[in-house]
Amino acid sequence: MAYLNDHYLKLKVGYLFPEISRRVQVFCEQYPQAAQRLVRCGIGDVTEPLPPAAITAMHQAVDEMSRRETFRGYGPEQGYEFLRHAIAQTEYRDRGLEIADDEIFVSDGSKCDCGNILDILGSRNRVAVMDPVYPVYVDTNVMAGHTGPADDAGAYSGLMYLPCTPDNGFVAPPPRKKADVIYLCFPNNPTGAVATHAQLTRWVHYALQRQALLLFDAAYEAYIADPTLPHSIYEIPGARDCAIEFRSFSKHGGFTGVRCAYTVVPKSLLAATREGQRAALHPLWLRRSTTKFNGVSYIAQRAAEALYTPEGKVQVRQLIDHYLGNARVLREGARAAGLTVFGGENAPYLWVQAPADLTSWQVFDKILNEANVVITPGSGFGKQGEGYIRISAFNSRANAEEVARRLQALKW
Amino acid sequence: MAYLNDHYLKLKVGYLFPEISRRVQVFCEQYPQAAQRLVRCGIGDVTEPLPPAAITAMHQAVDEMSRRETFRGYGPEQGYEFLRHAIAQTEYRDRGLEIADDEIFVSDGSKCDCGNILDILGSRNRVAVMDPVYPVYVDTNVMAGHTGPADDAGAYSGLMYLPCTPDNGFVAPPPRKKADVIYLCFPNNPTGAVATHAQLTRWVHYALQRQALLLFDAAYEAYIADPTLPHSIYEIPGARDCAIEFRSFSKHGGFTGVRCAYTVVPKSLLAATREGQRAALHPLWLRRSTTKFNGVSYIAQRAAEALYTPEGKVQVRQLIDHYLGNARVLREGARAAGLTVFGGENAPYLWVQAPADLTSWQVFDKILNEANVVITPGSGFGKQGEGYIRISAFNSRANAEEVARRLQALKW
Repeated sequence: MAYLNDHYLKLKVGYLFPEISRRVQVFCEQYPQAAQRLVRCGIGDVTEPLPPAAITAMHQAVDEMSRRETFRGYGPEQGYEFLRHAIAQTEYRDRGLEIADDEIFVSDGSKCDCGNILDILGSRNRVAVMDPVYPVYVDTNVMAGHTGPADDAGAYSGLMYLPCTPDNGFVAPPPRKKADVIYLCFPNNPTGAVATHAQLTRWVHYALQRQALLLFDAAYEAYIADPTLPHSIYEIPGARDCAIEFRSFSKHGGFTGVRCAYTVVPKSLLAATREGQRAALHPLWLRRSTTKFNGVSYIAQRAAEALYTPEGKVQVRQLIDHYLGNARVLREGARAAGLTVFGGENAPYLWVQAPADLTSWQVFDKILNEANVVITPGSGFGKQGEGYIRISAFNSRANAEEVARRLQALKW
Repeated sequence: MAYLNDHYLKLKVGYLFPEISRRVQVFCEQYPQAAQRLVRCGIGDVTEPLPPAAITAMHQAVDEMSRRETFRGYGPEQGYEFLRHAIAQTEYRDRGLEIADDEIFVSDGSKCDCGNILDILGSRNRVAVMDPVYPVYVDTNVMAGHTGPADDAGAYSGLMYLPCTPDNGFVAPPPRKKADVIYLCFPNNPTGAVATHAQLTRWVHYALQRQALLLFDAAYEAYIADPTLPHSIYEIPGARDCAIEFRSFSKHGGFTGVRCAYTVVPKSLLAATREGQRAALHPLWLRRSTTKFNGVSYIAQRAAEALYTPEGKVQVRQLIDHYLGNARVLREGARAAGLTVFGGENAPYLWVQAPADLTSWQVFDKILNEANVVITPGSGFGKQGEGYIRISAFNSRANAEEVARRLQALKW
């Protein structure tokens, strides 16, 4: 008799975004006219076309695939050297951070990597997440059997939740209790908060002292405008010995439909075997990559490489500036509407307090029905997200301005 | 203290293909001149350019990504409806097999899916594989902790190995002992054997009787030339209740560098919970897909769709015929060289007995050094693979003919 993985049965309802889709679909069926003026600021998906440098590179790559002499079949599972080098050089070594080409693992998405990384980790790690939290960190731990069941508020026993509130600037400090694996995400999804150098240093010290592992999700690093804020965990001395970093071209180059990301696993990073011996994680991740993955589409890798050309860099900058400009418009609009707003300065997300003691889903439904705007209910990100909503700045400028106007027209 | 997954430490040496690469690299460094005439018949990677229909579709898709109105960000994690429909309709319903669009899950590779499928299965399944076996089935089970350590021959305790030999035509019958999850791969990698309708029927009956699950890897189904052989497990009545099928565009359309595949999970397929209740696997795989995956590149999905157009179908047929023609040339050459050859009629792989009591790696080294041809040692596929080599037909016709000549020039 074949058995299924019972841990899946612990998962609460749908993953956040399918539930949003469902409610939006119901709305559109009920109000087909209002549906036509719907503006989506929900899922953090980009809206602007790809940078021209990426388009040109992809056309060239497609042409290469059409001729026997230049055709490419399987590439290295870890990514082509041309891309690993461009990443390591531009994102790290040019900024004084010691990362070797073969410490870069090119993948088809940070979401995938954030989940897959658990494959190489043991089952008795005590796992900590921030609250609110990107649901993938939690759900993949549930699936892997690292938790007990969820309580009524959706929190799973066995996971350590670190509250992020206005009091700590939405950056939880290290806990007193022991955690072995800690997810950090800065710029944060959903709150838009960014940890300072000092805050990350506390986390690195915590990890080094306890031989813990930091899983640092920097998918949104390109949105950091403040020059004093760290883009990479490796800006903190010692991080090479305690941190894995996840990066993506999704929000950086608008690649959500192209699929290309990367994960940095330093060769100096160790973890403990069951017997307490310390061994490197790099060979395990390499082994996982070569066994359970077949590399990213050649065409996507050439597109990603093109983002590091001089013209590519300028175009990426324009794209980021566009979305950050939207964030400013939305922030000003929401504030003018009397709302309390966090984030949106070094991140494409605004984290907005629900007015009048409404719940997150009440605000979601009201904004959907009355402003015909889709946002994301904060409670979908955890207990501490209740009473907040996330507004995404991924949109056209016209839409951002329209949403800012509609928010101001709402009566609470 | 962060713990690693100790099960990885049980894995023997390198995964087969990295070890081949290493030996080839050593050879090329030692004999740079001979290296220039090297012909690779090792890894099963395609060599011919993509079908023109796929090229045209990719250029169009890239252009769509360059304009705001037609830009595509995140797609459905399970794949775009246009592709799921084309697959379900063409590969299944047009052939009288009842598979719904939403039972198709588009992915970036069959290798990935064959590994990832274990995520939704329980840890106490008794797992059976054929021997010789595609190493991914074994290694992913080792990683997931479903086995004990390996013995000297590389066989892991806790896994059931079903010997495939000339006596059973390289298609093992169901065992007397209980197996809960069984990997079947036809056309087989590495032996090139294809199970008949009667043989698969025995397996489906076995699975239905024991409520077992068949994981049917049909990545090479397009190479079946004999019209009496089944292409899909769903051609066997009852298979919808006991089988998952993996298919790929890698060998079908030459997509090894493009990355697109799919997995069929029928909604009628059940597995047992720990308490022995039966529940559907479809929602678990859907949940895994939406949580740990972000869909296949839009450009790759449009390319795959184009393979189902009338011109795409003709071009795929030409590609397959080309490789099958190579297989015939190689088969005839190997036989003329006095070798005993299996496979290569309904598959792109020849399974050749090592002459003169040599081991697989001895034959590998001899053919590399004396014929300057890279093949794959059969022992890399398991105990029963010792004494065999696999020759891949993925090549140009000129290379296939050259390899056939060189094989005949070897003295054993």
